[in-house]
Amino acid sequence: MFNALLLEIENGIGKITLNRPDFYNAFNDEMSYEMQDALKQVAKNPDVRVVVITGAGKAFCSGQDLKAISGAKNRSLSDSLYKRYNPIIKAMRNMPKPIIGRINGVAAGAGCSLALACDMTVASEKASLIEVFVNVGLVLDSGSSYFLPRLVGFAKAFELATMGSKVTAQEALNLGMINKVAPEEELDNAVKELTDYYSKAPTKAIALMKNMLNKSFHSDLEEMLQYEAYCQEIAGNSNDYKEGVQAFVEKRKPEFKGV
Amino acid sequence: MFNALLLEIENGIGKITLNRPDFYNAFNDEMSYEMQDALKQVAKNPDVRVVVITGAGKAFCSGQDLKAISGAKNRSLSDSLYKRYNPIIKAMRNMPKPIIGRINGVAAGAGCSLALACDMTVASEKASLIEVFVNVGLVLDSGSSYFLPRLVGFAKAFELATMGSKVTAQEALNLGMINKVAPEEELDNAVKELTDYYSKAPTKAIALMKNMLNKSFHSDLEEMLQYEAYCQEIAGNSNDYKEGVQAFVEKRKPEFKGV
Amino acid sequence: MFNALLLEIENGIGKITLNRPDFYNAFNDEMSYEMQDALKQVAKNPDVRVVVITGAGKAFCSGQDLKAISGAKNRSLSDSLYKRYNPIIKAMRNMPKPIIGRINGVAAGAGCSLALACDMTVASEKASLIEVFVNVGLVLDSGSSYFLPRLVGFAKAFELATMGSKVTAQEALNLGMINKVAPEEELDNAVKELTDYYSKAPTKAIALMKNMLNKSFHSDLEEMLQYEAYCQEIAGNSNDYKEGVQAFVEKRKPEFKGV
Repeated sequence: MFNALLLEIENGIGKITLNRPDFYNAFNDEMSYEMQDALKQVAKNPDVRVVVITGAGKAFCSGQDLKAISGAKNRSLSDSLYKRYNPIIKAMRNMPKPIIGRINGVAAGAGCSLALACDMTVASEKASLIEVFVNVGLVLDSGSSYFLPRLVGFAKAFELATMGSKVTAQEALNLGMINKVAPEEELDNAVKELTDYYSKAPTKAIALMKNMLNKSFHSDLEEMLQYEAYCQEIAGNSNDYKEGVQAFVEKRKPEFKGV
Repeated sequence: MFNALLLEIENGIGKITLNRPDFYNAFNDEMSYEMQDALKQVAKNPDVRVVVITGAGKAFCSGQDLKAISGAKNRSLSDSLYKRYNPIIKAMRNMPKPIIGRINGVAAGAGCSLALACDMTVASEKASLIEVFVNVGLVLDSGSSYFLPRLVGFAKAFELATMGSKVTAQEALNLGMINKVAPEEELDNAVKELTDYYSKAPTKAIALMKNMLNKSFHSDLEEMLQYEAYCQEIAGNSNDYKEGVQAFVEKRKPEFKGV
Repeated sequence: MFNALLLEIENGIGKITLNRPDFYNAFNDEMSYEMQDALKQVAKNPDVRVVVITGAGKAFCSGQDLKAISGAKNRSLSDSLYKRYNPIIKAMRNMPKPIIGRINGVAAGAGCSLALACDMTVASEKASLIEVFVNVGLVLDSGSSYFLPRLVGFAKAFELATMGSKVTAQEALNLGMINKVAPEEELDNAVKELTDYYSKAPTKAIALMKNMLNKSFHSDLEEMLQYEAYCQEIAGNSNDYKEGVQAFVEKRKPEFKGV
């Protein structure tokens, strides 16, 4: 069904694997559009309660395939963002489910943006994040200009963006760009810990909180207090809330269905 | 005068102690409304130049009393936020005086929001902060969706909000959620250092700066430069400014009156 | 040409040295207006591809010269900001070139704002940053209320602003206020590493990224994705991009001209 990526759905988990390992999972047209499709599928599939994005082989994703570009005449970079990359980033941020980035290797350029657009990220010790755009005279895209300063502050964002500095997994953790670093052989266990949790979590409440955090940075306190009340009313009418309170009273572990 | 809390005003300090230690200072209706009253009293009392919020017993505040909720039929969570919690958070952020959180123990749910809504926080080594909402299928409220990402960045905020992770005082310090950690027996000294300072500080200028920081995150540079000029003109007409410059010229310590 | 500062232009670098060492490079009227002029000159000079701001002698900049103020009757602080300081800060943030702060010593008050308004900062181990305004009953100005919470988060910003705490270079690095600390004797080498890079970098793309980061904090994701596409189209039509892709294909180092 897909050529440039793999989609596996199992045990409440939708796993998308960028699958062009010979090209360090660089985005060509096909992979961009398949990614859009795969995200739509996991979004609408009620069995999927957590999404994992990762790469096949050594790299996570090396961004735009520059060889594809260098052959094309008069290619509009703006068009490419509107048609290929921005829909991916928006689908990820609007996905009403948590997305875990399993950063198995280098995440460069649009691949770095893809990592930063995940809700949580676990990286292999051998992984690195690089905003390589400047190396060919380009600017941040695919959302990096939005995510980066919110994660590392203005001063560090300017440095990483304009110098194209390589950030190791450990440095990324210290800077707050990612959530966890694991030795390569422990990466799957670290991701499994998260998918075990999120596949049995109150998914509706988590989707509402994702919306709240998306909205927070450009809203003032009054707006967020109102939005919290609006979302809490929805969460308070969910089956998971009834179960949560019941389990609390009965002093047992709740069994959340995600609705 | 109050049943569920203590209010002590002395030496320029207004100290509010949540006082339901047998319930880990969980909010019931009474404590919410008394908190609103207490905040009004310290706001308008000209003798109070710094406010301290803390908890009696082992906990700082364990948030909403879930037993109170589980008994009530058809309780609207939205109503509860509008009537009980949001006025507390807004009163704290609009208080023209610094508020120091003395985090003596666990701060959970709305109790965590209460801690984050303080201007500065000093925590006991034994204290912890937990966004427990998700554990019963609820979402962040009482301002946590506003404060949390501004303190720890998006990636960590998503983790703490959706996993309900327990953050120790030391971790909270490393993440920038709080200002200081002290051994339990040194907590009062650490708070006293701050109240000694703020009770003799230029309170008017501090209130203006609190407004500036409240406004900063949703404003652009031009707006903030204009607001700085507006506030600096007010500060420049205060008695404390005259005293400050005079003391500078005379090479002595200024005696600020807070006006 | 200038009395209170030095302007040197060489090898693509425009270096501005605040030159009132006997007054710790405090701003008097003359230095403010000369700074505005110097920033205009480096902005419009096509030979300048990176700007350095530093101080002569022991201090970086001690902010407003309080002795100048204490002598003046009915001086409007608001006027002073509109005429003297705010144009400097705006010129720095609108400069289509990277600005490196070489923080050789204390940066206090408006001097601290000046340091924070740079795109990147390298500080001597002996340097420190202090928001001294509160010590004379004043509020943050010259942009510090915009920059500070975006660099260190709300809780720490309140502490530094209202207590006037001295932040050593190492602490500033840990807090994300600056980019690098160097032993005093290594400061020039550390700055040279940056000017070597930026004087041969794709300056147009860097100027666009500076605009993007300026805009990021008060914009939502959709706005930034659109702005990225707009800027990427411009970058994609630059000579530096053609050279960047060409060099990539030919597996050689690109020679960027900055246009």
